[in-house]
Order: sequence, then structure tokens, then C-alpha cells
Amino acid sequence: MIGYPNKKSIPVSHQVRDNYMGRGMSLEDDLNKSNEYYLEIERAVIHKKPIPVQIVRVDYPQRSAAKIVEAYYKTPSTTDYNGIYRGKAIDFEAKETKSKTSFPLSNIHPHQIKHLMRVLKHGGIGFVIIRFCAYDETYLVDAQYMIQRYQQNESKSIPYAELKDNGFLIKRGFTPRLHYLDVVDQCYFKEEA
Amino acid sequence: MIGYPNKKSIPVSHQVRDNYMGRGMSLEDDLNKSNEYYLEIERAVIHKKPIPVQIVRVDYPQRSAAKIVEAYYKTPSTTDYNGIYRGKAIDFEAKETKSKTSFPLSNIHPHQIKHLMRVLKHGGIGFVIIRFCAYDETYLVDAQYMIQRYQQNESKSIPYAELKDNGFLIKRGFTPRLHYLDVVDQCYFKEEA
Repeated sequence: MIGYPNKKSIPVSHQVRDNYMGRGMSLEDDLNKSNEYYLEIERAVIHKKPIPVQIVRVDYPQRSAAKIVEAYYKTPSTTDYNGIYRGKAIDFEAKETKSKTSFPLSNIHPHQIKHLMRVLKHGGIGFVIIRFCAYDETYLVDAQYMIQRYQQNESKSIPYAELKDNGFLIKRGFTPRLHYLDVVDQCYFKEEA
Repeated sequence: MIGYPNKKSIPVSHQVRDNYMGRGMSLEDDLNKSNEYYLEIERAVIHKKPIPVQIVRVDYPQRSAAKIVEAYYKTPSTTDYNGIYRGKAIDFEAKETKSKTSFPLSNIHPHQIKHLMRVLKHGGIGFVIIRFCAYDETYLVDAQYMIQRYQQNESKSIPYAELKDNGFLIKRGFTPRLHYLDVVDQCYFKEEA
């Protein structure tokens, strides 16, 4: 929605497209590469889930791969990433924002918040990874905090300064590009460190 | 592959299609409904992952949803189902077979086996749910056993009788349609039962 403050009627599909294909790309790419690395060194098994798509029509041309010719994006019912780390279920959503001042809560779907609540309830580790593109800073924000802020109906966004205080900055690197499991160690495995 | 013993050169895309859309449908439907029920009663949070699709071209018609007009099935790099149950990460694949005599191991992708190995390594609970349609029997088969059998290169399938002995029959019902978490309790949470 950023950059389109007066276009309230922008169709849902275009919002979804933005989230999937535009803004999210580079953080997504960093996370995928980091997860590949963590998989390789056997530190964790964490994957991005495929984009949920409703397939309507498929062609089967002779001697070549089945071709999907009509399909639509579906609203995700869970977060994008999950897996296992140090014996615990890990579950998180990742979002970028171009805003310099705040993270718009509309970036997260209500069912994703509900899903994170369930993750915590059933004993998993849940969080949201938020990147402020303007500062090239990426934060891990605990799900509990995110859920609370989401449920405060009056607020439509979380100020940058507040996220800086309540989130945990993720160190960038070459391999992995985002040392996010170090932050997970720090936040969720303190007593064992 | 069942029913096409002489068509060794059947294109990969058609095999994939079969797995996704044909055979797997009814077991998949039973599992989805069971997972919905388990979610509702807050017993577990387990979801089927979306079908992995490579999106090539998307149209954005005016005033309507973005339409994917060219996309292809991708080989899954993980299993289809995962989630959290009793504080543990749960991960499994589900397959139906029409065979009366054996389960063809070609139904499971090599990377799915590799993924299950990783799940076990990192402390998750992994298994395969296999349905013999001919008998309307559905079994939970532990990942460790499945991996071993998969790695015995000489065997291309697991006989029905062997799976009956080494798997655990899942009770059918109305809600949930498959009481598979009862079997998970029995197999993986014995000491706490």
C-alpha cells in the first residue's frame, strides 16, 4: 500500500502481487539463500512454503510438461516460512517495507496473526522478520509482541523507533546473508547458550 | 505408475499430475478435513503446503483478480504436510496406491526422503501416511523405516503384508475422518500417555 495513500480501492489481487513479487523479493531471496546454507551445514531445516495458487485449468501438450493456463493467487492461511531448529518448530513471516518511519500492519494478513498465535500455543517458536529497505536493516520481532500490537485496533502501523527498540537486529553477511538463527539462539535458547 | 507397466517413458509432468490431482485426492481431502478439525479443537496446527508452482506469466485484467496464464508444476523439495503437535515439529508425506499387493517406492521423491532424514536429525517427528485404496486401509509408517526401505536399492516397492506389519492402521471416523494423531500419540508419545 505504501506509495498509494489515496488509492484505497486498489484491488486485492494487486496488493497480493505486490507482496509476492515486488517488495518481498530481496528479503525473500536473502532468507532463501540463508536457509539453503543452514540446510547445507545441517544447522536447521527451514523452507519457504510455495505461493498458494488455485489451479483452474491445465493443458497437457504432447511430449512436454503440463502447462497451467489458468490459476489465481490465494490468500495465504499460514506464514511463509517454517521448519525445525534445535528440536523446536520454527515458524515465521517475512516482510519488507519502503517506509522510513513505520511498518504498516496491513502487510500482515489476519490469518497469519492467528496462525502465529496457534504456533505459540502449540509450543513452537514464532516471529516476524521485518526489513526497513531505506536503512537496509532487518529485525526479528517476536510473535507475542507482534500479536499484541496487531490487536491494538487503534494502531495501523508500528513506528520504526519502536521496532528498533523491541526487535532484534539481524547481522548481515555473505554466508549466510542473514545470520537470523544467531538471533533465534539469543532470543529463544538463552538458558542453553 | 500403476496401471502403466509398459510405459516406462511416461513424461515426468504426467506422473506429477497424477500424484497431485488424481490418486492423491481422496486421502488428501481426508487429511485436510482432519487437520481442519484438529485446528478447530486446538489439538494441533498442521497444514498441507501449497502445490509448488513455477509462475511464468501473469495477466492483470482491469478490476479483476490477477490471472496466472503460464505456470508449471515444480518437483516438491519437501513433504506435503507439516506443523506442530504437543510441542514437537511434525512432518509427513501422504500417498495413495491402487495396488493390492505393494506400495511402489517411486511414489516418493528422493528429496522427500532426504527431507525426512533431516526432519529426524533435527528432532522432528516424521512419517509417511500410505493408503491402500483397494482395502480402504490407511497406515502411518515411521520415517526411519521408510528411509531404510528406500535405501535398499534392490527393492522397488514394499509389499502390502510388510507395511501391514510395520505400519500402524489409522482408524477412520466422521470427525476427524482419519484419527491419525491418536496413532502419533501411540507411536511417539508413549511414555507420556
